Amino acid sequence: MLKTRITELLGIDYPIIQGGMMWISRAELVSAVSNAGGLGIITAFTFSNTKDLAAEIERTRSLTDRPFGVNITLMPTFRPIDIDGYIDTVINARVTIVETAGRSPEPYMERLKGAGVKVIHKCTAVRFARTAQRIGCDAVSIDGFECAGHPGEEDVTSLVLIPLTADAVDIPVIASGGFGDGRGLVAALALGAEAVNMGTRFMATKEAPAHARVKELLTTASERDTVLLLRSFRNTMRMMRNATADKVLELENQGADIHQLEKLISGKAGLGLLESGDVDNGLVSVGQVVGLINDVPTVKEVVDRIISEAREVASGVASNGLFKPLRRPTDIGK
Amino acid sequence: MLKTRITELLGIDYPIIQGGMMWISRAELVSAVSNAGGLGIITAFTFSNTKDLAAEIERTRSLTDRPFGVNITLMPTFRPIDIDGYIDTVINARVTIVETAGRSPEPYMERLKGAGVKVIHKCTAVRFARTAQRIGCDAVSIDGFECAGHPGEEDVTSLVLIPLTADAVDIPVIASGGFGDGRGLVAALALGAEAVNMGTRFMATKEAPAHARVKELLTTASERDTVLLLRSFRNTMRMMRNATADKVLELENQGADIHQLEKLISGKAGLGLLESGDVDNGLVSVGQVVGLINDVPTVKEVVDRIISEAREVASGVASNGLFKPLRRPTDIGK
Repeated sequence: MLKTRITELLGIDYPIIQGGMMWISRAELVSAVSNAGGLGIITAFTFSNTKDLAAEIERTRSLTDRPFGVNITLMPTFRPIDIDGYIDTVINARVTIVETAGRSPEPYMERLKGAGVKVIHKCTAVRFARTAQRIGCDAVSIDGFECAGHPGEEDVTSLVLIPLTADAVDIPVIASGGFGDGRGLVAALALGAEAVNMGTRFMATKEAPAHARVKELLTTASERDTVLLLRSFRNTMRMMRNATADKVLELENQGADIHQLEKLISGKAGLGLLESGDVDNGLVSVGQVVGLINDVPTVKEVVDRIISEAREVASGVASNGLFKPLRRPTDIGK
Repeated sequence: MLKTRITELLGIDYPIIQGGMMWISRAELVSAVSNAGGLGIITAFTFSNTKDLAAEIERTRSLTDRPFGVNITLMPTFRPIDIDGYIDTVINARVTIVETAGRSPEPYMERLKGAGVKVIHKCTAVRFARTAQRIGCDAVSIDGFECAGHPGEEDVTSLVLIPLTADAVDIPVIASGGFGDGRGLVAALALGAEAVNMGTRFMATKEAPAHARVKELLTTASERDTVLLLRSFRNTMRMMRNATADKVLELENQGADIHQLEKLISGKAGLGLLESGDVDNGLVSVGQVVGLINDVPTVKEVVDRIISEAREVASGVASNGLFKPLRRPTDIGK
């Protein structure tokens, strides 16, 4: 059940992609996902210059001989970025898969496709998926309202966006936002996707470069523990709810200007929290699926468990007897 | 694949339930859903007195010999309601299935269960589902953020809420909010539900008692055409976006008080629009799944199509070859 156009396109064993996460998506995690049969993705702008990115690509290559990708997010950022330089670096390093996000990758398509790079564009609306197909992207990753990071401003959930996108484009669709287990993978496939993209689930793994206290927080947080920041500026970010996020939201509600808030966020959403583990003093992007995450296994354990759960779920749904859903008993009081 | 604890509990052929909708869920629609093998549900408070409700129950019974239910929404409403009287009416009419929503049905459980009524409680959070189980409900219907009507204030989507609820309770779970086709039914089952509840999809059927122009609007609306009203009062309602909804939102944003807004809404959300078809001058509850609805078939066509799609999707997901998702080609430019 696990061969799809996405696994064929990317040359991977399982339709599981690790979402590009700032600071987190480095060689250790990326190579672990690719070695487990999924697709790991380095986040280019975690590296403040192209030399460091090139070094990370080489370091990843030293840890896996499987395919991996690089995420390039085409968004207004808190610092000016030489996007062309990063694109050149990725092409020169012979990376074969690039995930773009934010703005349309159209200005870079000719160079990327000319270099034989497969381009996945991640977006938050059906019309953007149509554009991605029109400009020659190989696949589209559709991000529902429940996702971590930037869900867009239209608040349409994965359950509705995935089938709409599958109906709207011919290129394969990757489901992103709200996925973390085998039940979700089967649901994504049923809805018309050909792979899932997971960020939060991979952040709670042994290999993710984050402080143990951050991972611990992911296992105890409930689905209600995320908050939307910068909504009033139409630049919404979904973050873990903590003292810092509450403070930013309070300032936003009091009418603070965007520059003040962006400065505060960029100071708090960096490496600091991930390295210090001071979980009240920093910001971290997580999706609502954090409520389904209760442990910190290895990446391989995550991937193997999802595949084995998915097989069990799919055979249950397809059986002709009394259908019994897979339940994962939990005594965690949430 | 379509026998579940819900079909067994309710004595129905397919795990498809028609959500209780004010004004819409009357004998014609309810009996059509039950005759098609699903469960139709009358909305009690569509009837301004218990005598009219009793008459509607009898009228439904004259149109079907299959099981059907009655929805009793335990919420603050725009008019005072004698809930005990409605409960008595349902029991005296020998209705065997009641769906409660809004507040906890605990004060009525002893009478309902004493009369042999099966109680489904519809709610919007995992902790409310736990309560429903504790007080003796037979099943729980969980409503995601994408649903029509009252999504609650926590904005957790069906994709995340369904598996969390399935893990949290032993009673069977019904997935509500965002469902309208066979892909959604398989996704719901994969996520741990044992049936889907659909409102918006059944409103766009030949049997639904609504003006043709309202149904036409449902077929052309996109997933972006819903709007949340009364959010600032923590009494959120998801409505079709139109001139009236925009006006209410504008007044809300300008600081209108809750009584003024409720009066406006109750005047606009009644039978008027459904009967007149004046689609800009009235309010109608729809979910984001409206974006997936492109036609106005009979109820039986909806149910048969969903079941046949679900079988196709389930066998595709469970196959060992290259998995090809079901796509429904559409040339509707949205």
